[in-house]
Amino acid sequence: MSVAAIIGGGVIGGGWAARFLLNGWDVRVFDPDPEAERKVGEVLDNARRSLPGLSDAAMPQEGRLSFHRSMADTVKGADWIQESVPERLDIKHKVLAELQGACDESAVIGSSTSGFKPSELQQGAVRPAQIMVCHPFNPVYLLPLIEVVTTPENDTGIVEKAKALLTSVGLYPLHLRKEIDAHVADRFLEAVWREALWLVKDGIATTEEIDNAIRYGFGIRWAQMGLFETYRVAGGEAGMKHFMAQFGPALKWPWTKLMDVPEFTDELVDLIAGQSDEQSGAHSIRELERIRDNNLVSMMRALKAQDYGAGALLNAHDAVLLQDSPVPATLEQITDYAVPLVMLAQAVPIDWLDYNGHMNEARYLEAFSRATDHFMKLIGCDADYIANGGSFFTAETHIRHLGEAAPGARIEVTTRVISGEGKKMHLWHEMTHEGAVLATGEQILLHVSLETRKPAPMPDAMQAILARMVAGQADMSPPDGLGRAIGAPR
Amino acid sequence: MSVAAIIGGGVIGGGWAARFLLNGWDVRVFDPDPEAERKVGEVLDNARRSLPGLSDAAMPQEGRLSFHRSMADTVKGADWIQESVPERLDIKHKVLAELQGACDESAVIGSSTSGFKPSELQQGAVRPAQIMVCHPFNPVYLLPLIEVVTTPENDTGIVEKAKALLTSVGLYPLHLRKEIDAHVADRFLEAVWREALWLVKDGIATTEEIDNAIRYGFGIRWAQMGLFETYRVAGGEAGMKHFMAQFGPALKWPWTKLMDVPEFTDELVDLIAGQSDEQSGAHSIRELERIRDNNLVSMMRALKAQDYGAGALLNAHDAVLLQDSPVPATLEQITDYAVPLVMLAQAVPIDWLDYNGHMNEARYLEAFSRATDHFMKLIGCDADYIANGGSFFTAETHIRHLGEAAPGARIEVTTRVISGEGKKMHLWHEMTHEGAVLATGEQILLHVSLETRKPAPMPDAMQAILARMVAGQADMSPPDGLGRAIGAPR
Repeated sequence: MSVAAIIGGGVIGGGWAARFLLNGWDVRVFDPDPEAERKVGEVLDNARRSLPGLSDAAMPQEGRLSFHRSMADTVKGADWIQESVPERLDIKHKVLAELQGACDESAVIGSSTSGFKPSELQQGAVRPAQIMVCHPFNPVYLLPLIEVVTTPENDTGIVEKAKALLTSVGLYPLHLRKEIDAHVADRFLEAVWREALWLVKDGIATTEEIDNAIRYGFGIRWAQMGLFETYRVAGGEAGMKHFMAQFGPALKWPWTKLMDVPEFTDELVDLIAGQSDEQSGAHSIRELERIRDNNLVSMMRALKAQDYGAGALLNAHDAVLLQDSPVPATLEQITDYAVPLVMLAQAVPIDWLDYNGHMNEARYLEAFSRATDHFMKLIGCDADYIANGGSFFTAETHIRHLGEAAPGARIEVTTRVISGEGKKMHLWHEMTHEGAVLATGEQILLHVSLETRKPAPMPDAMQAILARMVAGQADMSPPDGLGRAIGAPR
Repeated sequence: MSVAAIIGGGVIGGGWAARFLLNGWDVRVFDPDPEAERKVGEVLDNARRSLPGLSDAAMPQEGRLSFHRSMADTVKGADWIQESVPERLDIKHKVLAELQGACDESAVIGSSTSGFKPSELQQGAVRPAQIMVCHPFNPVYLLPLIEVVTTPENDTGIVEKAKALLTSVGLYPLHLRKEIDAHVADRFLEAVWREALWLVKDGIATTEEIDNAIRYGFGIRWAQMGLFETYRVAGGEAGMKHFMAQFGPALKWPWTKLMDVPEFTDELVDLIAGQSDEQSGAHSIRELERIRDNNLVSMMRALKAQDYGAGALLNAHDAVLLQDSPVPATLEQITDYAVPLVMLAQAVPIDWLDYNGHMNEARYLEAFSRATDHFMKLIGCDADYIANGGSFFTAETHIRHLGEAAPGARIEVTTRVISGEGKKMHLWHEMTHEGAVLATGEQILLHVSLETRKPAPMPDAMQAILARMVAGQADMSPPDGLGRAIGAPR
């Protein structure tokens, strides 16, 4: 069992704690604040309802969470130590020295600092080699970006170890090629923040109008392609050079006030805080956190379906999680046909809920459909097979709803083959949560040619696999409800 | 019928043309480029497959598109004139003068300029009052933001007219309080672009790494909440003032190179173009456009489900589109119960497709489920009713797939009540495309108390409505396939 030590339990430290804990690590927290346990608990509540459903695979079992009174106890034997204490170099140096007095030499010490370079953190350290910047983004339990910044003091071994551990908990380590003030992302945020302060101060737009200018325009563009790929598309067939030639001259124009810094007067603070109250004051911060997490999960899952941007990253991580899943990856992994086959194991995502506060009926079919997809893959109808023109189309489905599913609840779908020969395959799915049946899904599928879009016989090898499965289930009693007409009494 | 004149048919002009055309306007295009018709056609292809499915209502019938050889012909009698010619003030002045020689005084002349202020465009114009900046974002057919920038020369009447017309085609007019160089959004883009050029030039990160820093972190955050609301959440319960106090001092730190402008040498252009090729060169621009549009539609639809950001905007626009829909908004609008009731009319969105290139089975149920939701609303089970603790849960569904649906195809769902009394409602849905039945969906729903989560009788008034509907359909023959068990021969 891997152990993470979290030094500083605010929003950022709490986010790190949640990220590790929900990925199966044991997590120890040190924070002298008497409110730390409550604060970390609140972040964990948010993480537990949003993170598991981001994945199409079941996450590992949660690790153990503990709070400690001494830094030495917290870090002893830990594999990862994450420092998220206030942004003052003297405090950071004192904490790092205390950590290094008690921790393993092989542990990674990551700092969440946004303001300091790793060379500054390493000053005067007994083992500078193990200290590096690992700068996260809020909410740490959902957003994958971690800026990893190192110096020549960090040897390759520990840097590779750090990147591998971050990747293993679903993060994306962006290893900067050189250290620089504020790393990369915060330099952009700083530039936009400066410009935004001027726009509000000069009365060009309010905070709400500026937010709308971002989220109805370039913000949603950047969420999927970033800056350069977006401009590449804008440049059209003429290419990136042409685009740059067009945009280049604007650099000399007075399109920004960034050369100046607005003075940070009480008046400016009041103006912005007042506009922000007007814009967002109808919601408490807790509500806004939930709204933000719902939005992020929904958009990231939308990008998963397109296998792009953060969605492609999540899919790659799912592929790793699936290796420890009860869902067999290949036919050879199935040792016993005389039991229903687990074809799906995952948590109910936030975006599957409806106004009744439970999983929407269409998402039951989405889960059954994904179970069918995986079953098809096992019998040989995989992406290659489909690319070569064969597939299955669903002809009929009968769903019976027997229970409800809440967000974050772990569900499984098991599948039985009722029959499968010629052009037709008859499947029986059951969806369960902690052993209780939530729904049954009975499906008739037809093997088709994607060229004619018409039914066509399955290849012999596929029919043989299905025959073996049906024979293996011969001693099982037929599922309760099989072949029943809709509305028939139970 | 409203008429839009599009002056300049590049990517931006083509996007404007598509936006108006697909919202039912007649569109006339002027562009001396012999390739203009092909170029606008390509933008239209992209728009036709992505924009209609963004809406949960059916869009109006497309207007007529025509290409003209003279500017005077193009603008005569037009309600909206959009100028998207190259960014040179002398060209803009010449074009505007010619437009004003032929167009109606009451027409809005919007300029797509990103570089010029409206006061500059109005210089020397015969009627400065009708000229304003309406600055769009690419792709114009999907992104809602339009920066509207005016001067005191523009009287309130024409500004309000412009904002109303933009809103009517699903755009969000952000009316700046004062004119300023580069408006609002491009000032942010310019700031980020400058910083990005330095980061590449100084070898801190590649174009791909910078794009990842954006889209795995703050980009996806900004897509939904923008800058200020994101920081409000980050500030936590302590509030916006506290957040600003923390962030404020950083303004004085050297976190940006924005004060300098990197020199735009061939070397820098080659470096960036080369990195961009490595990052995105595997896809053609046409492919990247499709990928971008698929991503944008998927994310914007995800935000619709959360009713937030651009999603809330789209929902508000849908509510307007629904007024011209074949779907009755209230029970009183239904004049004839002896025909199936149209409960849904929309286009198949891109994110409803699967690997077989057609609408995924789960989305058929999503469409039936939305038809059921609307039917529930008509019989009195609306948001208020649900908030007061009553609702319907689906007990069983039987779907038969009889045809396929392609992206952008317009589908309708009609609904019949088979029975409805006590706790139970039995519905029959049919999904059609151009009159052909794509699928049938038979559902048994139970009226429930949301407190006990158990079945409970419907109120008498609701039962009376259902009885009236069932009686109204007494002379119709039962639907083909009603009550059939799954897999039963047709």
